[in-house]
Amino acid sequence: MAGDEFTSIRSPRIKGARRLAKRAFRQREKRFLAEGPQAVREALAAPARVHELYVTGEAVQRNADLVDGASASGIPVHRVTLEVMTELAQTVTPQGVIAVCDFVDVPLAEVTGVRLAAVLSHVRDPGNAGTVLRTADAAGADAVVFTDASVDPYNGKCVRASAGSLFHLPVVVGVPVLDALDQLRSHGARVFAADGRGDCDLHAAADTGVLDHRVAWVFGNEAWGLPEETVAATDGAISVPIYGAAESLNLATAAAVCLYTTARQQRATTGSGTASR
Amino acid sequence: MAGDEFTSIRSPRIKGARRLAKRAFRQREKRFLAEGPQAVREALAAPARVHELYVTGEAVQRNADLVDGASASGIPVHRVTLEVMTELAQTVTPQGVIAVCDFVDVPLAEVTGVRLAAVLSHVRDPGNAGTVLRTADAAGADAVVFTDASVDPYNGKCVRASAGSLFHLPVVVGVPVLDALDQLRSHGARVFAADGRGDCDLHAAADTGVLDHRVAWVFGNEAWGLPEETVAATDGAISVPIYGAAESLNLATAAAVCLYTTARQQRATTGSGTASR
Repeated sequence: MAGDEFTSIRSPRIKGARRLAKRAFRQREKRFLAEGPQAVREALAAPARVHELYVTGEAVQRNADLVDGASASGIPVHRVTLEVMTELAQTVTPQGVIAVCDFVDVPLAEVTGVRLAAVLSHVRDPGNAGTVLRTADAAGADAVVFTDASVDPYNGKCVRASAGSLFHLPVVVGVPVLDALDQLRSHGARVFAADGRGDCDLHAAADTGVLDHRVAWVFGNEAWGLPEETVAATDGAISVPIYGAAESLNLATAAAVCLYTTARQQRATTGSGTASR
Repeated sequence: MAGDEFTSIRSPRIKGARRLAKRAFRQREKRFLAEGPQAVREALAAPARVHELYVTGEAVQRNADLVDGASASGIPVHRVTLEVMTELAQTVTPQGVIAVCDFVDVPLAEVTGVRLAAVLSHVRDPGNAGTVLRTADAAGADAVVFTDASVDPYNGKCVRASAGSLFHLPVVVGVPVLDALDQLRSHGARVFAADGRGDCDLHAAADTGVLDHRVAWVFGNEAWGLPEETVAATDGAISVPIYGAAESLNLATAAAVCLYTTARQQRATTGSGTASR
């Protein structure tokens, strides 16, 4: 435990950490807040990413393994009062542990031979974006790209909704969508727009075999989808079929169906689970 | 337009409608609130369900078709001030139109030859429950059962998350989960528990053909899943495979993958889209 307990929300260190709730400060310092034991545990799996830890006395008891692990890795652990934690936390009922982490995103150029990728374009709700990131991770994706017109993945709600997945796979941030598509295609991926107005039905597409090899999906805005020029830059627009009376699916749900249908096709084809092309 | 504009939140009629935000009052009156143009439009597709409509002056302009349609069907339309609408609405930025609807659920005994059904057991978050209802509708499900240990589907958040699907397919409310499973199985459905700890992988199960015929899925609590005795009463526990490093999927996402994988199998088998058994 580094030094004394922080009891004042006016402490410069606390104010400095608190500012990371704002995007402009995150951008300047290249750091963000990971809140709750699950996110902190995932962050600590690569200790170099974690700058410091804040914990309440109660949370130290409940998460002794986390706190001991951080200390053993040389990460400063600061004890704070519940009042200070409430100020730092972005949840109504804080779980008592927050890590200040260095940004984890990688340059687009490092995203090369992906088998399955998700590109978020104009996705604005951080909860949706975090859920897509978590689902892409679960479906075995190799990369997730947050384009310059999408929400910041380091937004606290997005970090929480990702349930640790922000730390699991390469994430690219703030690139133009067309650059992302070029990069993915130049490394052999077919790029499909997930688009409720698409002519091609997902299940029909899967049956033709186009989802068997390297695939990148582009997901658009929650309300209005993707700009025409983005769709035009893909290899095609594919819609999740609506078999009942619903008008549409929500973004995270549609993404889950697209990503998992692709993962199944890729594995059915290759058997071993490695990309065949 | 029935009578004058309501300008006071203390009007007995307004207070009566406002009370429907509480489950106890909904239960007593067998009525609930559907908020926003999309939900109201779906409700009005069966006008007998709609008891009355509240609209602001501005919303009358924007939704003339809705308001005219309701009036033509003999539904009382009450004009309210923005202040009154804000009191009635359960959203921060109300869209200016709310319908008081009669309950739409059906008795369990009326759920007979379903091809695809979803059973929610101990699902507690109304947003998740509404999203599963919307996804089940999109995937072509014939019924959704909210067991007695699940959230109330008439909760405002659930109604909004369902995006109108509450009005699209038979919904059963408040029955014991084992009664629901008995009913579905007695009419030829195989019942599977969606369970992250399940031995059988969804894609492997699909490959064996067990999802090709009548299927009902049971989805459990967001945090702890399904009770052992519920899983034991099914034909098996099936997990969505995790190909990456994520610990799990969220409930609505896992449900989407289960329901759509089943819908695809059923259609691949029958071609015509009708149940084969």
